[in-house]
Amino acid sequence: MKVLLVGYGAMNERVARLTEERGHSIAGIITKSDKHYPYPSFKIEEEWPAADVIIDFSHPDLSLPVIRKEQPVPLVMATTGRKEEIIQALEAAAATKPVFFSANMSYGVHILTEIIKYSVPLLQNYDIELTEKHHRKKVDAPSGTLVKLYDAIKEKREAAYPVYDRTELESARTDDEIGINVVRGGTIVGEHEVLFAGHDETIQIIHRAQSKDIFASGSLDVAEQLVNKTPGYYTFDNL
Amino acid sequence: MKVLLVGYGAMNERVARLTEERGHSIAGIITKSDKHYPYPSFKIEEEWPAADVIIDFSHPDLSLPVIRKEQPVPLVMATTGRKEEIIQALEAAAATKPVFFSANMSYGVHILTEIIKYSVPLLQNYDIELTEKHHRKKVDAPSGTLVKLYDAIKEKREAAYPVYDRTELESARTDDEIGINVVRGGTIVGEHEVLFAGHDETIQIIHRAQSKDIFASGSLDVAEQLVNKTPGYYTFDNL
Amino acid sequence: MKVLLVGYGAMNERVARLTEERGHSIAGIITKSDKHYPYPSFKIEEEWPAADVIIDFSHPDLSLPVIRKEQPVPLVMATTGRKEEIIQALEAAAATKPVFFSANMSYGVHILTEIIKYSVPLLQNYDIELTEKHHRKKVDAPSGTLVKLYDAIKEKREAAYPVYDRTELESARTDDEIGINVVRGGTIVGEHEVLFAGHDETIQIIHRAQSKDIFASGSLDVAEQLVNKTPGYYTFDNL
Amino acid sequence: MKVLLVGYGAMNERVARLTEERGHSIAGIITKSDKHYPYPSFKIEEEWPAADVIIDFSHPDLSLPVIRKEQPVPLVMATTGRKEEIIQALEAAAATKPVFFSANMSYGVHILTEIIKYSVPLLQNYDIELTEKHHRKKVDAPSGTLVKLYDAIKEKREAAYPVYDRTELESARTDDEIGINVVRGGTIVGEHEVLFAGHDETIQIIHRAQSKDIFASGSLDVAEQLVNKTPGYYTFDNL
Repeated sequence: MKVLLVGYGAMNERVARLTEERGHSIAGIITKSDKHYPYPSFKIEEEWPAADVIIDFSHPDLSLPVIRKEQPVPLVMATTGRKEEIIQALEAAAATKPVFFSANMSYGVHILTEIIKYSVPLLQNYDIELTEKHHRKKVDAPSGTLVKLYDAIKEKREAAYPVYDRTELESARTDDEIGINVVRGGTIVGEHEVLFAGHDETIQIIHRAQSKDIFASGSLDVAEQLVNKTPGYYTFDNL
Repeated sequence: MKVLLVGYGAMNERVARLTEERGHSIAGIITKSDKHYPYPSFKIEEEWPAADVIIDFSHPDLSLPVIRKEQPVPLVMATTGRKEEIIQALEAAAATKPVFFSANMSYGVHILTEIIKYSVPLLQNYDIELTEKHHRKKVDAPSGTLVKLYDAIKEKREAAYPVYDRTELESARTDDEIGINVVRGGTIVGEHEVLFAGHDETIQIIHRAQSKDIFASGSLDVAEQLVNKTPGYYTFDNL
Repeated sequence: MKVLLVGYGAMNERVARLTEERGHSIAGIITKSDKHYPYPSFKIEEEWPAADVIIDFSHPDLSLPVIRKEQPVPLVMATTGRKEEIIQALEAAAATKPVFFSANMSYGVHILTEIIKYSVPLLQNYDIELTEKHHRKKVDAPSGTLVKLYDAIKEKREAAYPVYDRTELESARTDDEIGINVVRGGTIVGEHEVLFAGHDETIQIIHRAQSKDIFASGSLDVAEQLVNKTPGYYTFDNL
Repeated sequence: MKVLLVGYGAMNERVARLTEERGHSIAGIITKSDKHYPYPSFKIEEEWPAADVIIDFSHPDLSLPVIRKEQPVPLVMATTGRKEEIIQALEAAAATKPVFFSANMSYGVHILTEIIKYSVPLLQNYDIELTEKHHRKKVDAPSGTLVKLYDAIKEKREAAYPVYDRTELESARTDDEIGINVVRGGTIVGEHEVLFAGHDETIQIIHRAQSKDIFASGSLDVAEQLVNKTPGYYTFDNL
């Protein structure tokens, strides 16, 4: 499989390394920059080299013209930001090529979310609590993935509402509250725990990321499937 | 809800306590013994008091005549041993009353099994490892619940096979092996972990039991539903 | 060993059961009540039966006269409330008999605290985060045990300060903050986690209580040692 | 701090990156190879550039002449293999410069071991169980670090003996056995758990490595301290 990369930041460096480790090759890099890269680089308007799939971890300014360029190569879109614009452009492009989009390329996080959606209706009498752990430099809290998990739970338990600081409350837990706990320390890449606590038993579901490779690796897993698809708009739900 | 108990061992003592805590009442105890009980006791052949449901945590010698007795009260069967005989008798009785049977009354363990069955096909490239922890006096290993989880996995990953002692092996892990780990110590009631380990990410699903109340509590949850059912044979799968 | 109980609430019922399970016996109960008990009961002012040790899980109104009564039996004091008054009375009584006091009779929690005190100075570049999990009915937060752990850490890392809600902060974690996380759900008896997070590695120390028996059991462990001591004031630190 | 590296394999590449991230610099690389490196390279017999400390993650063939070279620069030795020869050479060199040696440069693993040694005598009535988790390609089992932990425990609980497969046993756990559990899956870098299980409570101590950087990072931590030491032979115990 020949992979064309869009952008060459920290994420696509990882994609390139994993691409080669899996026995595939890098056809080149689409970029606006004139820097020197370890692979041949191309501008948007130039003719691109032959490739089986395009993987884009860049920026909407670069991604949008890439999506709109008339060429029939399957496209894995992993750029974040200006989400609606990106999706709209992808929907148009889906008429002529297979395109894939997800805000979080980790297959594990995707499956975690599915498992939670499956579990919540089965555990109606269980209290739900969420905890995420990340490195000491992460300022935003809670993490986007925790919010994604919370939304998945709320889809299935509509009366749910979040509680961020129990030390400020003066009454016991209600059925519908969902405690949100945020741990920050060291260089933890990312850990998310969903706790279901019932009468004398608990079920804990924990996802632990070990490196940002999971996003690179996830995009390659998608790419390997997307090359065999007919034109259309794909997500983890219909791949 | 009036509950008639069959037997009054450690488990049904717990059922009685929880029954009252939930605002229901105990109609009496079916027993072969002449001991003094905290509730009125009845022999198999005597006339039984009016009740909405019968819960049986006893022994096949007592359970079988209970199942066969002609009376239309819903029956929750939690007795273990002579499983085939019990199921056969229940299937016959199901023509005239709702009957429920499970080898493990914990609702949490049942749901854990369902979650695992749901997850395995979604995590095909993940290695699976199982660990159970129990108190120091438990001699049999691995636990029945771990075997149940293993069977659920094998249903979905047919080539799977168990590995009990990695210190004896001289080659790397294969895709299909499932490590079985057994921890024994203190008074741990029961903990089961299913680990899915993939590329740079893991998903862990852990069930932890805090007391044997989960079995009593599970039987009462079932009873509360069974009283509204039409005659038939029920399990956790169709309740 | 003959044990004389002061009070007969939920805790001393457990103490009585464990006393007999360990092959010791109950000499009687000191109480103000006229209720009927499963053991002979005595008022403060009556003559008490011969005993090797007294265990008190009651109330300061009962404990204070017990402490002050002139009799030479070793005394394990596990009553909470009016702490200074109790300690003062015990210090006076320590001249004529061995007395023991702790606000938390769990030996495991005591050792956990010791382990944390040992670890903090060794892990100076590690961020510390605390999490406690308790049942849904517990209103006060954080738990007394978490506060005890926090105090133990602060003794060794003087600049430490607590942070209760990271979702309200807009800057990255500092070296000195200690995140305090509170989980409430189901019937969890009590779980405390101290996380040390460093560069690419973490050390987690977790204490998990399975039942309130640990307090009863802890008081008996203390009693078994106290019967061999000379008069004096004992705590977990000098027993 | 100017760091001279011995060898430039996967470990020293990490050391170089972390050295610069911490604001130190790389003076050069000692090597037998004529390959091109990102830093100036030197042979054993050449004159070496000025440096404050030498870090060696190489091979005994290279390390031994490095140790024996007459130059007064502090030396952090992290090479494994031919341990006795290395230690002997270091002991001789310690007369003229500070030298440090450890078979595992992770400071966290060192502290974990210290914590365990501290805890075992305090938890005499607790059962101890060990579990390690590593990536699917690791063939040897149990891990060297688990063996190190086991040895630390055995130092304090002399009657201890290991049990590798409980499914083969037909009797209950004894006080002295230590269950050894080995989990293999995915790309797990390394996780070690020591479980102390007592009556109704457990204490778990878990070390989790996130990348091999902990060994690089550990060697730099040592280097930063070693530069201020007088000549002598140092380990984690006397640094």
